[in-house]
Amino acid sequence: MNSNYQNITENAYNLSNSLDSKGKLATYIPELANVDPSKFGVHMTKVDGTHFGMGDHLEKFSIQSITKVLSLALAYKIVGEKLWDRVDVEPSGTKFDSLLLLESYKGIPRNPFVNSGAIVICDILISHLDNASVDFLEFVRDLSGIPDLTYSDQIADSEKATGYRNVALCNFIKSFGNIQNEPNVVLDFYFDMCSIEMTCQQLSHTFGFLANGGRQLVDGRKIISKSKSKRINALMLTCGFYDESGEFAFKVGLPGKSGVGGGIVALYPHNYTIAVWSPKLNPNGNSFKGMKLLEEVTTHSELSIF
Amino acid sequence: MNSNYQNITENAYNLSNSLDSKGKLATYIPELANVDPSKFGVHMTKVDGTHFGMGDHLEKFSIQSITKVLSLALAYKIVGEKLWDRVDVEPSGTKFDSLLLLESYKGIPRNPFVNSGAIVICDILISHLDNASVDFLEFVRDLSGIPDLTYSDQIADSEKATGYRNVALCNFIKSFGNIQNEPNVVLDFYFDMCSIEMTCQQLSHTFGFLANGGRQLVDGRKIISKSKSKRINALMLTCGFYDESGEFAFKVGLPGKSGVGGGIVALYPHNYTIAVWSPKLNPNGNSFKGMKLLEEVTTHSELSIF
Amino acid sequence: MNSNYQNITENAYNLSNSLDSKGKLATYIPELANVDPSKFGVHMTKVDGTHFGMGDHLEKFSIQSITKVLSLALAYKIVGEKLWDRVDVEPSGTKFDSLLLLESYKGIPRNPFVNSGAIVICDILISHLDNASVDFLEFVRDLSGIPDLTYSDQIADSEKATGYRNVALCNFIKSFGNIQNEPNVVLDFYFDMCSIEMTCQQLSHTFGFLANGGRQLVDGRKIISKSKSKRINALMLTCGFYDESGEFAFKVGLPGKSGVGGGIVALYPHNYTIAVWSPKLNPNGNSFKGMKLLEEVTTHSELSIF
Amino acid sequence: MNSNYQNITENAYNLSNSLDSKGKLATYIPELANVDPSKFGVHMTKVDGTHFGMGDHLEKFSIQSITKVLSLALAYKIVGEKLWDRVDVEPSGTKFDSLLLLESYKGIPRNPFVNSGAIVICDILISHLDNASVDFLEFVRDLSGIPDLTYSDQIADSEKATGYRNVALCNFIKSFGNIQNEPNVVLDFYFDMCSIEMTCQQLSHTFGFLANGGRQLVDGRKIISKSKSKRINALMLTCGFYDESGEFAFKVGLPGKSGVGGGIVALYPHNYTIAVWSPKLNPNGNSFKGMKLLEEVTTHSELSIF
Repeated sequence: MNSNYQNITENAYNLSNSLDSKGKLATYIPELANVDPSKFGVHMTKVDGTHFGMGDHLEKFSIQSITKVLSLALAYKIVGEKLWDRVDVEPSGTKFDSLLLLESYKGIPRNPFVNSGAIVICDILISHLDNASVDFLEFVRDLSGIPDLTYSDQIADSEKATGYRNVALCNFIKSFGNIQNEPNVVLDFYFDMCSIEMTCQQLSHTFGFLANGGRQLVDGRKIISKSKSKRINALMLTCGFYDESGEFAFKVGLPGKSGVGGGIVALYPHNYTIAVWSPKLNPNGNSFKGMKLLEEVTTHSELSIF
Repeated sequence: MNSNYQNITENAYNLSNSLDSKGKLATYIPELANVDPSKFGVHMTKVDGTHFGMGDHLEKFSIQSITKVLSLALAYKIVGEKLWDRVDVEPSGTKFDSLLLLESYKGIPRNPFVNSGAIVICDILISHLDNASVDFLEFVRDLSGIPDLTYSDQIADSEKATGYRNVALCNFIKSFGNIQNEPNVVLDFYFDMCSIEMTCQQLSHTFGFLANGGRQLVDGRKIISKSKSKRINALMLTCGFYDESGEFAFKVGLPGKSGVGGGIVALYPHNYTIAVWSPKLNPNGNSFKGMKLLEEVTTHSELSIF
Repeated sequence: MNSNYQNITENAYNLSNSLDSKGKLATYIPELANVDPSKFGVHMTKVDGTHFGMGDHLEKFSIQSITKVLSLALAYKIVGEKLWDRVDVEPSGTKFDSLLLLESYKGIPRNPFVNSGAIVICDILISHLDNASVDFLEFVRDLSGIPDLTYSDQIADSEKATGYRNVALCNFIKSFGNIQNEPNVVLDFYFDMCSIEMTCQQLSHTFGFLANGGRQLVDGRKIISKSKSKRINALMLTCGFYDESGEFAFKVGLPGKSGVGGGIVALYPHNYTIAVWSPKLNPNGNSFKGMKLLEEVTTHSELSIF
Repeated sequence: MNSNYQNITENAYNLSNSLDSKGKLATYIPELANVDPSKFGVHMTKVDGTHFGMGDHLEKFSIQSITKVLSLALAYKIVGEKLWDRVDVEPSGTKFDSLLLLESYKGIPRNPFVNSGAIVICDILISHLDNASVDFLEFVRDLSGIPDLTYSDQIADSEKATGYRNVALCNFIKSFGNIQNEPNVVLDFYFDMCSIEMTCQQLSHTFGFLANGGRQLVDGRKIISKSKSKRINALMLTCGFYDESGEFAFKVGLPGKSGVGGGIVALYPHNYTIAVWSPKLNPNGNSFKGMKLLEEVTTHSELSIF
């Protein structure tokens, strides 16, 4: 079975890699525009602990929005179901995202993975933790098993210098009363959080607990409850890929989350997690080759949750 | 295992039935306003063919929008992947549904389960079948094993007399060129299609092929391909419950489809289908008790796709 | 003074006529696409009864939406201020016109000059007149002094055959309860109403009462009250040119109304009316040369209401 | 004639003052919530220099958004017609104001009187003046003839502390590239600008140049050209009262501008300016009694621009 998965993944990797290199680097964050666009790696970790990878799977990249799943996990663990008073669980559905919908829903973001929702999650963490920035980093170090993991100042500063739209979002939500701390403080944490870097291997390990009913793969330690784990997976399926969430569910059929750094992590509950990285993005902001690879994997493994 | 499912379903039925009878009957279709609001039934059909039910599970009700899954299945079978040139696969995400989004996306409905999408599916069936109304009925007779199934003229006429919003939708899409036949013809078929009545037992049997990789439960006959079956399931998960699709995925974790008649069908691939009926609707237009029952079933069976 | 106006208008006509012939014929109504695009005429009628014209000012063209001012005048005369319970008096402001705004404002059109508003005015006339189609024609015959004025069946039929968007609008408003008669009946009248043809000379005469405190120029007979006349003028200023209403007020500074047939009528209260016709439209659907001519006239006459 | 105007204004003042005191104080700016809600004053200044007032017309109040007409006048004087590359001249038309429309029009505000437009005007002034804050104050001192006019730190600080929505707007426009300076710098100037206080008498004097073809009443000195003066008046008519601009044009028929401090200034070109103040606002954010008074004045004077 392992070798089977490995064959399928290798074939998918080779097929995707041979495709004309479509897509564009994210340019709105200056630091991301400097990445080598030809990078391509994938790593799969099974719930039995076995794992394998290929290509640039041991090279670090900026995981960007993928980190929003981890901040959600921590906030959900701390606050419980009350969390959903401040963020909804519905797909945003349209490019009229954030601002129109925030207005319609009076400052309640549609879900925790759109920028507005992730900003509210940051605000919640700041309110509940002694030092959100330090404590969140500790949480991710523990999940990933990388004891010296840090925020990338270079990337965070690059975003802070140009992230006017996120400043707009945070202040707009604040005007509805759904941000409790000072916008500048919330945004600093938000930009830090999105600056984390990992390799495909580390990323697939880090997300193992969500394929394993909320428990760490290495030692079975409980991170979050089984029910919370399921619900986070449901959210990744319905809301993990911006405007393309339906398309990903339709073609790949797995819960997952993408980032503008070109990373995608997806998982098949009780089976495996898979992390892929290729920096060129399709028009919806998701990794072009990464999407192709995952589509190939689930088509040929005949394994999807549907 | 069967008795286990049966126990869980009975407990869920009893618990949901004891709840204060919240919600309201659909009133915008006059015929639906006459239904006895205390009706409550559920029926589960497993892929091994065993099945059981309780309450009013042998009483017919108007399945309404649930039929959209069946018209999609027929159109998808006929047209294949080209279908998606005319309908998208994304959640509509907001109450600004149909008209604003149709305008933004130039007459391409967001998915085949919003009214606008189902109307385009009707148009496609009319263009590809000799007599769409007759041929679709034959298709559903075959799936359901009910040889004398008919449209309910009473319900269809009731909708035709008051369905101004659907007339608006159809003509609006026509103005963008994404309806090929005459709006009146398309709408007649659409209203007929939504007027089908079934019992919970019949409904759970009818949807068996989607829990069974595209094949009929009774004889293994292939209705649609395994890949198409998966994709329809993915669409039910992301788009099956209007504004509440995210919430249903989050709380129940199964592909499903609701109708304003108070019916819901859901399915756990390779395991079972379940149909529930209770006419009072929550503010989002989904059966109040039906949602509760399904939430109970998946919570206690610890079985969801996530 | 008369010769002064005449000089200014002639200069404006010549200057506008020498411009590169930009713009496009309206094509969505098939009959309008057959008009000779080089036509260009203007006619001014002063409140003292003197008048003059140039170019194709004695040739009939389809006045289209310009007629909405006349149907408003008749409905306002009959219903009085209660009219504004069913139509608002605000600019629509954006290309997200009709449908989104109708939804936000629960079926109350933003003003009587957007299509949705004019359709509601038609519904009101049908409810209050024995035979709206005949009675409205009689009203316009009286205003224009053209005893044999008729609707153009060719143009009305051309619109009826392709006016899906207006069918959508009317049914959408009906679904909110703001249309009392059958949509088909309302739309038949609406399309008839828009099919009227006049020459620039006739059009400038017809609108004379609005420059004259509500009284006919020829005999001083009262059509509507002074207050109603002022208010209709205010509406033309704020809402007469779709997305370009602000621009027209800004550059021309007169109340006016345009039609997709390439006609524009404008008026300077207590001074004159002016009708201009040139079929090529700018991207906002207003006559390209007509706008230029009027801008020239008010710039050089130094006469605007501001 | 003067006594006639005075009689009409007195009658309108008494009638409006006797009305049940509807409306609410603006509360979103803390300082404004402390104003005595029973204040009511009016002052009219004719272009011949005569003037009169009644009630609290010699008491200072926060003119708020009314100042946007003055900042527009200064920016228009400096930049000329190029100004309109960065701000449009169309009514915003809907409560979906600022953010949705800014998105649709890629950061170009609909007009200079919505907050987003006034913020862009501030940005333009900062780019073109040595010290925008000082130079603008000097410009208003000159217009008003109040040599010691200053910004109110108390009000500006009060807005700065709570103006999250304006921070959102400014950063959102910056993200489209239509703000050149740092958002904080632009907003500081914006909040200062809105903090100016005047009496009704001073306000009606200050706006005299717009009723006088761009020239100061006292000495005929040219402030802006006649054409610019007309165009600013046109903008006040179409865009001066937020969602209620159409209603004001319809009922009052004069160019004007309101502020949330409860002030309104209106003017009849070549005749008079009138400033009124009553702090309680109607649901659209305009002074309840101020609107009534102006409606009475134009109804009984039979003088409107229409």
